[in-house]
Amino acid sequence: MEKVLGIDIGGTSIKVGLFSTEGTLEAVTKIPTGEIVSEAAFAVVTEGLKGLLAENGAKPEDVIAIGLDVPGPVDDKGKVGMLANIELDPEGLQNAIKRTFVNANLAFVNDANAAALGELWQGTAKGANSFVLIAIGTGVGGGVVSNGRLISGAFGAGGEIGHITVNRDETATCGCGRKGCLEQYASATGIVNSYKAECKRLGTTPVALDGPTDTLSVFNAHRAGDEAAQNAISMMCECLGYAMAQISAVVDPQIYLIGGGVGGGFKLYAEDLRAAFRKYCLAPSVATRILPASLGNDAAMYGCAYQALFERGA
Amino acid sequence: MEKVLGIDIGGTSIKVGLFSTEGTLEAVTKIPTGEIVSEAAFAVVTEGLKGLLAENGAKPEDVIAIGLDVPGPVDDKGKVGMLANIELDPEGLQNAIKRTFVNANLAFVNDANAAALGELWQGTAKGANSFVLIAIGTGVGGGVVSNGRLISGAFGAGGEIGHITVNRDETATCGCGRKGCLEQYASATGIVNSYKAECKRLGTTPVALDGPTDTLSVFNAHRAGDEAAQNAISMMCECLGYAMAQISAVVDPQIYLIGGGVGGGFKLYAEDLRAAFRKYCLAPSVATRILPASLGNDAAMYGCAYQALFERGA
Repeated sequence: MEKVLGIDIGGTSIKVGLFSTEGTLEAVTKIPTGEIVSEAAFAVVTEGLKGLLAENGAKPEDVIAIGLDVPGPVDDKGKVGMLANIELDPEGLQNAIKRTFVNANLAFVNDANAAALGELWQGTAKGANSFVLIAIGTGVGGGVVSNGRLISGAFGAGGEIGHITVNRDETATCGCGRKGCLEQYASATGIVNSYKAECKRLGTTPVALDGPTDTLSVFNAHRAGDEAAQNAISMMCECLGYAMAQISAVVDPQIYLIGGGVGGGFKLYAEDLRAAFRKYCLAPSVATRILPASLGNDAAMYGCAYQALFERGA
Repeated sequence: MEKVLGIDIGGTSIKVGLFSTEGTLEAVTKIPTGEIVSEAAFAVVTEGLKGLLAENGAKPEDVIAIGLDVPGPVDDKGKVGMLANIELDPEGLQNAIKRTFVNANLAFVNDANAAALGELWQGTAKGANSFVLIAIGTGVGGGVVSNGRLISGAFGAGGEIGHITVNRDETATCGCGRKGCLEQYASATGIVNSYKAECKRLGTTPVALDGPTDTLSVFNAHRAGDEAAQNAISMMCECLGYAMAQISAVVDPQIYLIGGGVGGGFKLYAEDLRAAFRKYCLAPSVATRILPASLGNDAAMYGCAYQALFERGA
């Protein structure tokens, strides 16, 4: 029976999904790894994968596609760029996996791009011809799908929508070195920063926050009528709606999907976000749908598996 | 022998190219039409097409694909939207053509999108996997190609890059009803307006201008050392480079092609434009190439023919 693996690579462990070729998730496991830069570390990964297969009555030869999603740029030839937050030797790992899984096509995919593909395969965007996934977490990532295919970009910067400029007057510098990026206002970090700034401006006391990305507490404060929280979420919607209008003037998708951790609060701000987008977009694009993503943290695992399968020509 | 037709629809006439399936332009003709909204007008078109074929030893049955480019939105299902500057009944014309050319696949394509496809088929972008054509004339149009395919957009607004916002503080309204669009600064009209405003600001006398889109005279003034002309072109490059950086954060193309009338002056401003783009883009995209388009006014005629052929599965 042919199988597909989706491997979500994190800083201290990997999460692996075993899929049927139709996209049914049959089993999941987590393998603690640490840095993945030595033959010993590669072996931990391949042994873990073999273990998952054995537990589910499958053999390494059954695996026809393996996707790996990484938190960094991957260009449209599948080449992995600089990985800032993770110790990984992509080529070494790729070679080790190829030796063990001789029938498998391998594909690296950027994590936000992978999440978009996951939603295309088995999530809200199933069967959609064009959509943009906006993954809002610590930063703002994106995955652009047009004509049913992911746009990874010639230099791996496709879908880097967190770095669309929304405020040319900004003086604070974004992680990318530029100023006024969407990510500075619409990420979890951005929302929490806006909330604190609004509290200061209004002279109110912020609610207790569990770290610099605790949007859950800001959302709860919003529900409880906290004006600063409402202003912070409004600003997020304003910036995001504006950036989406710019995206629509380039690829004009059928649907926007909001995912990532902040996507969990979608209901709270959905109408504000839709109104902001309609205010800024070109007339033909007002009918664009704005919906929540549905696969949560598993989206990227699904999506990298899908890409590896798709590239194989399944 | 199988043939392909590309029909460039203008306000008072159509220009028709007869192509081989390999993309060689074998003959061109112009057919005066006026409004194309009646059976009589449709017949003028079909008779003109038959005449072109007869002159070149071909029959209507030989034609396997016919593309029509129109100055307005066409969505990703090939449906033509509102045409502001032209009197055309797309469905009526399509039916009349279908009755005469029974073996042909028909496709409508937006003009700037068609120009991009023309460059992909037989121009500078031949064989490129991803690029964005920026057609600078009276307005600023665009055609986005990713994964070797045109992105027309779910609502026909794909490649509407003239309406990327570059100045949120603008008070003058763009033709689209919004404010601060790229088109307000980087179109022929925008360049001429900037030139006049700069002359006023500097207290200099503008050179004689042949109408509101005469960028040729502005370019010549630039070459002659006219400071206001140099400032106007600088501003064009600044706005265009900024907008291109936003596009790169969405689709990250391999190449930008500058076409349309203003594209003819490319050499004059190429280095300024490249510098502006590099100043604003994300680090991975600095290697993006910025080149002149090569098919001039024939690009759209080539491109709609290509699209009709492509959709047929040739």
